[in-house]
Amino acid sequence: MSPRGRRPGGEDTRATILDAARAEFAEQGYDATSLRAIARRACVDPALVHHYFDGKSALFAEVMDLPIDPSLMIDRVLAGPREHVGAALVETFLDVWDSPAGRQRFQAVVRSASSHDEAARMLREFLTREIFGRIAHALVPDGDDADLRAGLAAGQMLGMAMMRYVVDFPAVATARREELVEVVGPVIQGYLAP
Amino acid sequence: MSPRGRRPGGEDTRATILDAARAEFAEQGYDATSLRAIARRACVDPALVHHYFDGKSALFAEVMDLPIDPSLMIDRVLAGPREHVGAALVETFLDVWDSPAGRQRFQAVVRSASSHDEAARMLREFLTREIFGRIAHALVPDGDDADLRAGLAAGQMLGMAMMRYVVDFPAVATARREELVEVVGPVIQGYLAP
Repeated sequence: MSPRGRRPGGEDTRATILDAARAEFAEQGYDATSLRAIARRACVDPALVHHYFDGKSALFAEVMDLPIDPSLMIDRVLAGPREHVGAALVETFLDVWDSPAGRQRFQAVVRSASSHDEAARMLREFLTREIFGRIAHALVPDGDDADLRAGLAAGQMLGMAMMRYVVDFPAVATARREELVEVVGPVIQGYLAP
Repeated sequence: MSPRGRRPGGEDTRATILDAARAEFAEQGYDATSLRAIARRACVDPALVHHYFDGKSALFAEVMDLPIDPSLMIDRVLAGPREHVGAALVETFLDVWDSPAGRQRFQAVVRSASSHDEAARMLREFLTREIFGRIAHALVPDGDDADLRAGLAAGQMLGMAMMRYVVDFPAVATARREELVEVVGPVIQGYLAP
């Protein structure tokens, strides 16, 4: 067996597609990247990309090493009662990141976004398109400050996570999930469904 | 003139003290570092440290390349009317970071805290001791969740800054200072003086 031998079959194709996606997202950003362009770069049929990945946001979640496709969780949050959307977002967010592996992934995302403009751009476009743009459309009453409110809600989640996973501020790092939902939930609700 | 020649006098002593402070803060964290230990490491009389720097938080602000000693700004915020403390904090924060140089410094602080445990520890101890610990003591009614509320207020500021300076989320990045004060001020107020 050659030490540089490629594994046959699906594993290999999947990895090739992921590499191509990583390069396309980095070069083009989230919005301008298409599954077709990823297939072209990976030299595979576009149908194979769809075979292995549930669409662009799922592929992005894997490239970013996120534990789950966040846009699926947004579907779930938006399907629930509107008056619980703040609490549901905080719960969902903590479910994703509240583990030793999640914490490390969060640190990696922050490190990368604060080190490379391209990484910051990917994150911005993904958050806007798949997360907070969708939430704003679904919930925030139309008006001048709808996008601002969505962005500040995103900022509140990001900041809570910075204190819990990066800065390791004792009271926030050791707070129980329910306490955070109780205190931060209404703030998110206030931004999104005032 | 030797290319490695030291400049004579104050500039040189000041730089030596700053180097020693950087090393002490990194090794000991913020809390355990004393001006005496910094003087010892710099091989200067402790009185010289006091001559060049207005105390530990001022020295820390220089080591972190902060545009101003944040604990001075907290003095100013706490001197104002209690019911405007949320708005005053947001204003003060934006005054410090809302410039091209401030933005870069903020990115550097985030990068460093998400890359090195020691940097995260320094930041945590500084925020706790000089900023949010003081605010919590002055404002938050005693109770189980006073520290949690202070930490979440810090998180909201940090998160707003992440969206504005790092992620570059359009609505937050381009918002006028007054808009941010208007929307985020009451949230901070709600955390700190509910």
